[in-house]
Amino acid sequence: MDEPPLHPRVETVAEDIETMETRGAATIADAAASALVTQAAESRAETPAAFRGEIRAAARTLLDTRPTAVSLPNALRYVLQRMDGESVAALRASVERAGSSFRDQLDRAQDDLGEIGANRLRDGDRVMTHCHSTDAVACIEHAVQQGKAISAVVKETRPRKQGHITARELRELGVPVTLIVDSAARRSLGDVDHVLVGADAIAADGSVVNKIGTSGLAVNARERGTPVMVAAQTIKLHPDTMTGHTVDIEMRDESEVIAPEDRAEIGEITVENPAFDVTPPRHVDAIVTERGQFPPESVVTLMRELFGEGTREPWAE
Amino acid sequence: MDEPPLHPRVETVAEDIETMETRGAATIADAAASALVTQAAESRAETPAAFRGEIRAAARTLLDTRPTAVSLPNALRYVLQRMDGESVAALRASVERAGSSFRDQLDRAQDDLGEIGANRLRDGDRVMTHCHSTDAVACIEHAVQQGKAISAVVKETRPRKQGHITARELRELGVPVTLIVDSAARRSLGDVDHVLVGADAIAADGSVVNKIGTSGLAVNARERGTPVMVAAQTIKLHPDTMTGHTVDIEMRDESEVIAPEDRAEIGEITVENPAFDVTPPRHVDAIVTERGQFPPESVVTLMRELFGEGTREPWAE
Amino acid sequence: MDEPPLHPRVETVAEDIETMETRGAATIADAAASALVTQAAESRAETPAAFRGEIRAAARTLLDTRPTAVSLPNALRYVLQRMDGESVAALRASVERAGSSFRDQLDRAQDDLGEIGANRLRDGDRVMTHCHSTDAVACIEHAVQQGKAISAVVKETRPRKQGHITARELRELGVPVTLIVDSAARRSLGDVDHVLVGADAIAADGSVVNKIGTSGLAVNARERGTPVMVAAQTIKLHPDTMTGHTVDIEMRDESEVIAPEDRAEIGEITVENPAFDVTPPRHVDAIVTERGQFPPESVVTLMRELFGEGTREPWAE
Amino acid sequence: MDEPPLHPRVETVAEDIETMETRGAATIADAAASALVTQAAESRAETPAAFRGEIRAAARTLLDTRPTAVSLPNALRYVLQRMDGESVAALRASVERAGSSFRDQLDRAQDDLGEIGANRLRDGDRVMTHCHSTDAVACIEHAVQQGKAISAVVKETRPRKQGHITARELRELGVPVTLIVDSAARRSLGDVDHVLVGADAIAADGSVVNKIGTSGLAVNARERGTPVMVAAQTIKLHPDTMTGHTVDIEMRDESEVIAPEDRAEIGEITVENPAFDVTPPRHVDAIVTERGQFPPESVVTLMRELFGEGTREPWAE
Amino acid sequence: MDEPPLHPRVETVAEDIETMETRGAATIADAAASALVTQAAESRAETPAAFRGEIRAAARTLLDTRPTAVSLPNALRYVLQRMDGESVAALRASVERAGSSFRDQLDRAQDDLGEIGANRLRDGDRVMTHCHSTDAVACIEHAVQQGKAISAVVKETRPRKQGHITARELRELGVPVTLIVDSAARRSLGDVDHVLVGADAIAADGSVVNKIGTSGLAVNARERGTPVMVAAQTIKLHPDTMTGHTVDIEMRDESEVIAPEDRAEIGEITVENPAFDVTPPRHVDAIVTERGQFPPESVVTLMRELFGEGTREPWAE
Amino acid sequence: MDEPPLHPRVETVAEDIETMETRGAATIADAAASALVTQAAESRAETPAAFRGEIRAAARTLLDTRPTAVSLPNALRYVLQRMDGESVAALRASVERAGSSFRDQLDRAQDDLGEIGANRLRDGDRVMTHCHSTDAVACIEHAVQQGKAISAVVKETRPRKQGHITARELRELGVPVTLIVDSAARRSLGDVDHVLVGADAIAADGSVVNKIGTSGLAVNARERGTPVMVAAQTIKLHPDTMTGHTVDIEMRDESEVIAPEDRAEIGEITVENPAFDVTPPRHVDAIVTERGQFPPESVVTLMRELFGEGTREPWAE
Repeated sequence: MDEPPLHPRVETVAEDIETMETRGAATIADAAASALVTQAAESRAETPAAFRGEIRAAARTLLDTRPTAVSLPNALRYVLQRMDGESVAALRASVERAGSSFRDQLDRAQDDLGEIGANRLRDGDRVMTHCHSTDAVACIEHAVQQGKAISAVVKETRPRKQGHITARELRELGVPVTLIVDSAARRSLGDVDHVLVGADAIAADGSVVNKIGTSGLAVNARERGTPVMVAAQTIKLHPDTMTGHTVDIEMRDESEVIAPEDRAEIGEITVENPAFDVTPPRHVDAIVTERGQFPPESVVTLMRELFGEGTREPWAE
Repeated sequence: MDEPPLHPRVETVAEDIETMETRGAATIADAAASALVTQAAESRAETPAAFRGEIRAAARTLLDTRPTAVSLPNALRYVLQRMDGESVAALRASVERAGSSFRDQLDRAQDDLGEIGANRLRDGDRVMTHCHSTDAVACIEHAVQQGKAISAVVKETRPRKQGHITARELRELGVPVTLIVDSAARRSLGDVDHVLVGADAIAADGSVVNKIGTSGLAVNARERGTPVMVAAQTIKLHPDTMTGHTVDIEMRDESEVIAPEDRAEIGEITVENPAFDVTPPRHVDAIVTERGQFPPESVVTLMRELFGEGTREPWAE
Repeated sequence: MDEPPLHPRVETVAEDIETMETRGAATIADAAASALVTQAAESRAETPAAFRGEIRAAARTLLDTRPTAVSLPNALRYVLQRMDGESVAALRASVERAGSSFRDQLDRAQDDLGEIGANRLRDGDRVMTHCHSTDAVACIEHAVQQGKAISAVVKETRPRKQGHITARELRELGVPVTLIVDSAARRSLGDVDHVLVGADAIAADGSVVNKIGTSGLAVNARERGTPVMVAAQTIKLHPDTMTGHTVDIEMRDESEVIAPEDRAEIGEITVENPAFDVTPPRHVDAIVTERGQFPPESVVTLMRELFGEGTREPWAE
Repeated sequence: MDEPPLHPRVETVAEDIETMETRGAATIADAAASALVTQAAESRAETPAAFRGEIRAAARTLLDTRPTAVSLPNALRYVLQRMDGESVAALRASVERAGSSFRDQLDRAQDDLGEIGANRLRDGDRVMTHCHSTDAVACIEHAVQQGKAISAVVKETRPRKQGHITARELRELGVPVTLIVDSAARRSLGDVDHVLVGADAIAADGSVVNKIGTSGLAVNARERGTPVMVAAQTIKLHPDTMTGHTVDIEMRDESEVIAPEDRAEIGEITVENPAFDVTPPRHVDAIVTERGQFPPESVVTLMRELFGEGTREPWAE
Repeated sequence: MDEPPLHPRVETVAEDIETMETRGAATIADAAASALVTQAAESRAETPAAFRGEIRAAARTLLDTRPTAVSLPNALRYVLQRMDGESVAALRASVERAGSSFRDQLDRAQDDLGEIGANRLRDGDRVMTHCHSTDAVACIEHAVQQGKAISAVVKETRPRKQGHITARELRELGVPVTLIVDSAARRSLGDVDHVLVGADAIAADGSVVNKIGTSGLAVNARERGTPVMVAAQTIKLHPDTMTGHTVDIEMRDESEVIAPEDRAEIGEITVENPAFDVTPPRHVDAIVTERGQFPPESVVTLMRELFGEGTREPWAE
Repeated sequence: MDEPPLHPRVETVAEDIETMETRGAATIADAAASALVTQAAESRAETPAAFRGEIRAAARTLLDTRPTAVSLPNALRYVLQRMDGESVAALRASVERAGSSFRDQLDRAQDDLGEIGANRLRDGDRVMTHCHSTDAVACIEHAVQQGKAISAVVKETRPRKQGHITARELRELGVPVTLIVDSAARRSLGDVDHVLVGADAIAADGSVVNKIGTSGLAVNARERGTPVMVAAQTIKLHPDTMTGHTVDIEMRDESEVIAPEDRAEIGEITVENPAFDVTPPRHVDAIVTERGQFPPESVVTLMRELFGEGTREPWAE
């Protein structure tokens, strides 16, 4: 069967994503939704079936560029999930509405999320962070804007020490920062009111995929009675996990862990450098999204609402 | 009251300890016990009271050199605890016997401990280590000598990365080593049969003072069902804790955590660099000493047996 | 901008709520819903926008009377959430329908809830209560009506001893009652089949705000293997918490805790008398509402269904 | 009031279910849905009310045959829940659509579920099973079809040793099987990547009713850090539990536990042979259905979506 | 067989204990030890056997006065356990030595204990107390004397509100006090560094018998990560429990729980007023005695050392 | 070097143990102790060294017969541990004394243990048993003799169903018995006051080696709040574990698990039939021995007291 005709802008957007001209989870998602809207607006399809076929084909083209990034399929799922109507006009309108709504929400998502997360923080609270997450920083930023005094214990987050970025951004907000090595976390947990982290992906079983070290921190936080709060926009939800798929953990370059010269001195060893780990929902108290906060066990409901049931791929021919 | 006359060797030993000419927990303990034996052998005391006074004074002199090292008072306690007799001759003999017995045991302690620890390991076991401990390495070494195939997951142990030393020593024993950052520990715990660490001090309430990060690791090990084994010679027992004293946690230089130039870039922050943390006994499965293995909750019994009840300082005038 | 014209009944209802002429969570909610229905029925608005504006203004007026009571905004949210239509007539009908449905459900909520809660209890069960909750008592009452023999261990619930009220109501139902001080709860938990409490508010993260002492009881119940059941009508759900807001804990008068003369005798002390505490969802087995029972982690879904997403206030201009 | 006229096929189907001519959860559900469709298709009702009355009466007739089987009321609930329309024609169409959709989904449910469950398993994983569940076996079967090497530890599952059936079916799939007695489970849990069981029913509070021994296994799995996965089609969801009803645990014949001659030798004893037990949601990691996987705490949402709120019986007159 | 002749002072002491002229755990223990010493000093026994018989008879006479107080048999056990020698003179000396040593230790026990307990407290610590215990207050008093700033959260301890006594004594020491009802404990546990309680008895299995409410507090403290410290002189150790005996829990007068007039208003209810409960060792971090601190699991060793193996009663004929 | 001359009775005893003429842990231990006494009594050694050599040689001969039974080396350790003196006469007397004391204690051990265990049980208690242990039954027997009403839930204990033996013996004592399959244990744990099991060996780290299924039962008992009590005479203590040795778990015949014909039908499978498993001390509340009850964490102290430090084998040349 012939592929339906695609609007050139779809192909440009796809190319820009593929060549990483377009980068960043939110930027990619926005571009993808916008491309679908263009395809809908400019479509010359004459039958609803043809129109649907075009939109799905556009989605597949976009998806093929970066099959593992989660924000890209989420943008596509969101729009296709809402494509509905008996006529081409109705279908077109529904795609335009969905695309526009997705982009609007995306645009203010971090701001909304920050406000919600900030509401969980009280004046005088002390927060422990792991790695660097703009969503997590947004929560603290909004709390500061609400006039709350917040201080932070920042874990350096080996191997890449993204804690330094967090520290700098919090300093720019005027937040007092105490920097510690990752191993010193348990010792400080008793003096801390919240553990606050971001997420790379959230799975349908409620588990949180985030920077290596998150799960060990969460286990210790539970043992010390400190609540754990995950700040993650809904584009981090991972609909594939609804069908049981597990999130692949990227293994990063070994040289991040040990310099070649130090390694040579030690002798022949294996170095493992997993980028992420998985925190089960029972060690997380709340997931803060721009749509509100949720216990991790109920995020699947939000995931189904936003992105469909997930047992069928909406772009399948 | 006049201080009793001390043998010059006591003063030499004291000076060598003070100037750090004599270094290392075991070496210091050995020198101190040996100095007491010399004092006893060469004493010119004519009454039991005078003899006792001399030995106590020698102990005080030695103790004053390094009041915080735990092996030093342990050597003194061990010998003074066993000073007994109705005559100078009997007292002298008891001190010589105790000093000699202490030094003999010290001499073979790591070997005995290694053998005992090795017995807990089975052929094919995989061990996770934190920091570097010669006692812990001795357990693996003996297991290898027993013909067991042992492999190791070595945590790098920020900030000073003593894990590199452990890795090198294990490689020299032919043990396959996988190096990870500290944050990656929980992810590997499911594939590991034992967590094996050393100790800086063991307290009367059964808690283990060891390199920062040990307690967080132990909490995660318990949560994953992995047993935790602490290898520590009895000179690491901390008799002061019998009277409720807590072990001071050394705060080390901040530059170990972050280079001054990186710090300058971030802005004004606090850096905390605690050297140790405290693992409660409920997260430890066994403490392996040269005297046998013990549940952490029963180590106080061994402490009392070796070093006395602890509610009185044996060197008090 | 001018405020839209409000029906006098809205103002009367508002005044009655403000002066506490109208009292009690359910009574207030009922009055508020009824006032919105009146406003809708009698509205002279000529455009959908004007009509919507009037209803929102009425809601704001009502809300201003008691900004902290949760049942009041819930009634308003429920109705406004369902205001829908392209014409004034359609909008009016939708408000009337929603108001009527809300009031009908409210009217039979405790009865429905009691039936559902009673179904969890088996013949011969022994129940432990804390404080006094008409929803919790309704569960026992229905169980008794179902012909089940139920007995109760009633915690007195210092400082105000509302346990005495519970005891009296249960006696009136013929339920055998054992009264204990709050501290005796753990000792009895092994002989008890359920802990059954009410709630002052239920948060979006699944935590239960209830009379001080509930959370400590729930932790002990979990440790003893006794299930914890919370009986709470849906007007106790707290939609503000969807946006991360925490529930303020009222601090009550110190004289409830200690008589002034006893206090004078002791000397200068601080007295803290928090009215409520927060039980995390992991210590609660089921929340029983008139809409069915829910694990605490999924109550947010019900909250969104009944009261909207919560990230926007439906009465905002 | 007269009962509405029922189509003869409804009565035939009812009879076949009653006489156990029609057996098996899925077969019964399919027959019941099909009977409702026939009733709708052939109805001679002239008013919507009459039509609704007929369908409800047909449902009651079917329900009366086996009031305790959960798949039967689920089929009826699913269809009646979707009966909607202002005219007889619209109502008829809605019943036909719902019946057809229910049967289609049922037809491919185990296959879909198996695919989803298989996605949770990784190449090389070792799975522990309890009892025999075709849903659980389907997960392993699909994993094998995905090319993954899976091995299994099969608990024999006293008293009826359904583990032998599981073992045989897994052998037919080429899966290496290790058979153990039930008591040996904890010893193997450290070497196992998943516990995988089926379910007889899933309750609204997230608890899982399954073969006796499941809950004890799940508690041990949690303690050893091994995730627990329950495979259950949505016809196993138990809507009655939404209204607090508990699932009756069948007590089976004592001779399954002990042969009469052995019993005679022991003397007068009681024998208890419960068929099932109840696993609380906190000991289960995921429930895998044909609609996707869910944390047990969120299954109630799916239950409400498929079968209605549950506080009203849809077949009530 | 004739009872051996007892010294009149033994009988006077016995009578004074029986008539409660002599009261208080320590005072009784002191009197009993002193009576044994008198009996030994004044004995006219001519054979070792006769002497032993006399001392045992004296012990039995003393014991009969208050069979349930634990300090009385402990005094007797301590002395009889140390009665040793081949001649009457040697036996007499051993009893005198043991009696004198027991009394000396008793005399300074609370002081020693206070010092040890104080060492566990750091400057700035906040302590939560339950009931009133002079041993617990002694720990805080010594900490204050050591120059540490200590503050306290004092639970009122229904039904008898001994927390008021604790509050007053702490105020006299200058310690800032916050008084709360018992149910408010969990809410404050996050801000508290230690839970500090006394004990009525300590059992050989490591469990702590103390004022009702202690066990529930300890469970919550563990859940919040707050360490629990029990201050108890060794006369609170309960040697009978070495042979499995359980400690009877006194049920106190019901009017302590509810005033008769309030009760009459409620109707016919049962009131349970247990004086104590039992905290298992896993919820206690340290037991502080005058002999040092111990994990609860190792107290049995101290019990055997002080009071003998316990499987034989030393006063048995 | 020549082996010292052994008394013929030593060789007879050794042979009887080797040929299993002498069987049963207690009988073997008794025979071994008795043989050492004979060797001592009849020794013609003229020097202390020769005498010691003879006794050690006798011990080695006895030990060689059954190197894995734990009661045999315990008898030898007990006696050799107490061999002490400067002359042959003194040494002989010490061996005779130790041998006699060991045998006396052994003779009444089960009775003493039963009494102690019975003291932990209250009138009306319900006890759950696993496997068959004469020590555990002795506890119930003594409780019955104390006039307490005790009932029992007896797990059948696959694969060999020793629960049937327990059931029969308890019936003979008049104890009401409920028999269940092993998997039904968790369901009954809420109605049970104690789990009571025996032990095959107790290790120095406090873990309990007992019939397969014990550890899983103990984990569930802890989760349900039911205390676990282990009844084990001190000959079950395993001194080798003081030096880290682990207890080998016997793998028994596969035909105990599945009949060959059933197995043939299934196809090629592995069958694992471990006889024992290991319960960590944190899941056990008390170990009841004839010397008193102990928390599992303190049993090592008793082990050292009875059998020596264990780091040296007392029979080593």
